[in-house]
Amino acid sequence: MEKAFKNLLKSEFPFLCQSKLLLAVSGGVDSVVLAHLCKLAKLNFSIAHCNFNLRDAESDADEEFVLDLAERLEVEVFIENFDTMAYAEDNKISIQMAARELRYHWFEELRTSLKFDYILTAHHANDNLETFIINLVRGSGLEGFTGIKAVNNSVIRPILPFSRKEIEAYAEEHKIKWREDSSNASNKYLRNKIRHDIVPVLEELNPQLLDGFANTQSHLNDSLNLVEDYIGLIYPEVVSKTMYGYNLNINFLKKLPNTKAVMYQLLKTFGFTEWEDVYQLLDAQPGKLVYSESHRLIKDRDVLILTEKESEQKKVEYLIKEGEDIVMLPIGRFSLSEVEEISKTAPNCVYLNKEKLTFPLVLRKWNTGDIFFPFGMKGKKKISDFFNDNKLSLPEKESTWLLCSGKDIVWIVNRRADNRFAITDPSQKILKITFTV
Amino acid sequence: MEKAFKNLLKSEFPFLCQSKLLLAVSGGVDSVVLAHLCKLAKLNFSIAHCNFNLRDAESDADEEFVLDLAERLEVEVFIENFDTMAYAEDNKISIQMAARELRYHWFEELRTSLKFDYILTAHHANDNLETFIINLVRGSGLEGFTGIKAVNNSVIRPILPFSRKEIEAYAEEHKIKWREDSSNASNKYLRNKIRHDIVPVLEELNPQLLDGFANTQSHLNDSLNLVEDYIGLIYPEVVSKTMYGYNLNINFLKKLPNTKAVMYQLLKTFGFTEWEDVYQLLDAQPGKLVYSESHRLIKDRDVLILTEKESEQKKVEYLIKEGEDIVMLPIGRFSLSEVEEISKTAPNCVYLNKEKLTFPLVLRKWNTGDIFFPFGMKGKKKISDFFNDNKLSLPEKESTWLLCSGKDIVWIVNRRADNRFAITDPSQKILKITFTV
Repeated sequence: MEKAFKNLLKSEFPFLCQSKLLLAVSGGVDSVVLAHLCKLAKLNFSIAHCNFNLRDAESDADEEFVLDLAERLEVEVFIENFDTMAYAEDNKISIQMAARELRYHWFEELRTSLKFDYILTAHHANDNLETFIINLVRGSGLEGFTGIKAVNNSVIRPILPFSRKEIEAYAEEHKIKWREDSSNASNKYLRNKIRHDIVPVLEELNPQLLDGFANTQSHLNDSLNLVEDYIGLIYPEVVSKTMYGYNLNINFLKKLPNTKAVMYQLLKTFGFTEWEDVYQLLDAQPGKLVYSESHRLIKDRDVLILTEKESEQKKVEYLIKEGEDIVMLPIGRFSLSEVEEISKTAPNCVYLNKEKLTFPLVLRKWNTGDIFFPFGMKGKKKISDFFNDNKLSLPEKESTWLLCSGKDIVWIVNRRADNRFAITDPSQKILKITFTV
Repeated sequence: MEKAFKNLLKSEFPFLCQSKLLLAVSGGVDSVVLAHLCKLAKLNFSIAHCNFNLRDAESDADEEFVLDLAERLEVEVFIENFDTMAYAEDNKISIQMAARELRYHWFEELRTSLKFDYILTAHHANDNLETFIINLVRGSGLEGFTGIKAVNNSVIRPILPFSRKEIEAYAEEHKIKWREDSSNASNKYLRNKIRHDIVPVLEELNPQLLDGFANTQSHLNDSLNLVEDYIGLIYPEVVSKTMYGYNLNINFLKKLPNTKAVMYQLLKTFGFTEWEDVYQLLDAQPGKLVYSESHRLIKDRDVLILTEKESEQKKVEYLIKEGEDIVMLPIGRFSLSEVEEISKTAPNCVYLNKEKLTFPLVLRKWNTGDIFFPFGMKGKKKISDFFNDNKLSLPEKESTWLLCSGKDIVWIVNRRADNRFAITDPSQKILKITFTV
């Protein structure tokens, strides 16, 4: 394996010989063998070890072991202790996910602060095969079958082509000691079952399994890349950025040969789970919604509107006190002035009968049941009807501010004034309010 | 299962109740249970059974069993005997492939001649899972992981969502007899090993395995469709049809983010195996070739030329005898006439000194080492150099005819005459030859 490793370095990673490397070592056979191989290949490397504190004394013994290994190999070593449980709980993620995030975050920190060129990890061919089968067991899309890559940004996996058997045989042969790897503790049962009960049968059926499997994953990865290229190609025609999020062009989507598959690709990172509901939005009534954990997709006339979930903004209110003439708010700037007469009108400006106003004026969002008396019309109208008549999408409705005097709506900001506060006689005190974003 | 089957008929295949159906029955538990279910659902069906004669007395006993089943169910039955071994040998395919071709060919024949609307087969969920794992063992691209579909043209698989367990349990419960299925004999060992040693472990790890797996395959199938949509989208820009086959635009290919993956998709049906050689053609010297069993890919200046393998056409020769004035050949029409003087010239016409010609004239293809004396030039030249100077691609060279007098080349048809046969004096007998495709 030493020779094969050196050949691989020469052919695939010649740059590693001139690089400053950080080697992730758990204490398991894979990373310990990789450390020995790096030493033999005279690479310039330091060792990093995470103590995830998930197995008490055992975790500490792992740490001891790695410290000792570094001393024997005469290389620099970095150790970091993590409260993995707490991190997982705080971030509502699995222990395994927490360990991975903590690990890569720390490695990346070390790499940039101490100017390492690359991080090396000891993933091998069986890791990919086991993950493939885990995803077969759990159910997965194409992404779950493509496997870890030998090079991914600054992370390099130089023993990915080798099997666990080869690595363990090398360790036995050279009397290299190691400790059981605790890094994938949370799916250990699943992985062990696959390692011991499934993979040997597959290898019996095809002794060249792992070589063929590398090709299989390379093929699958090619296919995944082509899917992504396709999405990239049609993206500008389907998706447009808006101030509320993204709009998806319904007509274009419907004309595609595989509409649902494209929608899945476009929306898969937004946490949706009810995919049939998502697909049915294409033919739903305007206003129909589907929620994910973090987002929502809204059927509008010609587009599906993707926005973040309605936040707490509905409850936000701002006040305009009597006498203020310039009011700077996060949403924009209101300027108020008493004027002699109504001059030019504009959508972002309103003229009010000041005597009728009750200060402080309140700026708030629309609530179900709100009514107003539209300027220039007789009688009252529901705000929701006014919105619909003007074909406002839900995000537009939600982002519209109402200027209120007590419970009465004075102005649908930038859209329509209310009759009750209109100037009806030249003798009235005129308050002009202008809103600028 | 009877109720689930009827519900599935109602929701997914309501049209089957009004259709005339041909049910493929091997005698195995799957097809026998399907036959019973079809009877219970009062479907209008006949039974078709293939005797592949692969297991002597056993095969005949299967046939007997199906005849008996049809009698008990009171449905029409068709039996056909095949010499599967001979067919496999004749067509150089596996026994399994031969059985499949024979089966579907015969079914399709029955369907069209006897006006069946659909063919029903008894594939079930475990078939797809087993095939998935077989392809994992053997190595495969995305196509190998997408599985058989419930509906594929005129073939419908109405028990695809059911597991083998459910089907066997139904047979036990209703005391339905069956015979072991011999249809997948050639990979029986592999399939049985997977069925008995792998799938039970996977099901232990996830009791809902088969449900999740149906989703997985549906996802993978979506991805495959998107890959095909992508190839369809860029196809007109990469590929153009020519008289020799197809040209692939090298510049466009190189600009793609995943050139190799696209080349693989475009060329995968042409039997290439040395894919690295195929990819390296992009940057190879013009004239470099890669062969598949049936085709070849040729590096030309700006395109890769895909043509069928050079056939035996190189050895084809045609003769033009003395005195013939119109010669119709598969390659086009030659007209010969003696003329008084050289009138207008055109590429498809040549004026020769008749006295110098030795009849019959011979039409043949170019051979390495051929030389001629180009009209209007001094001295001789290799035909290959003439071709290269004129930037002819290999298929163009191969499709160019040489008109010869004995061993001498008289005319590179439609391209260049030879000095030795040129008219040098008005007193010479002028033979005008015109070639029209």
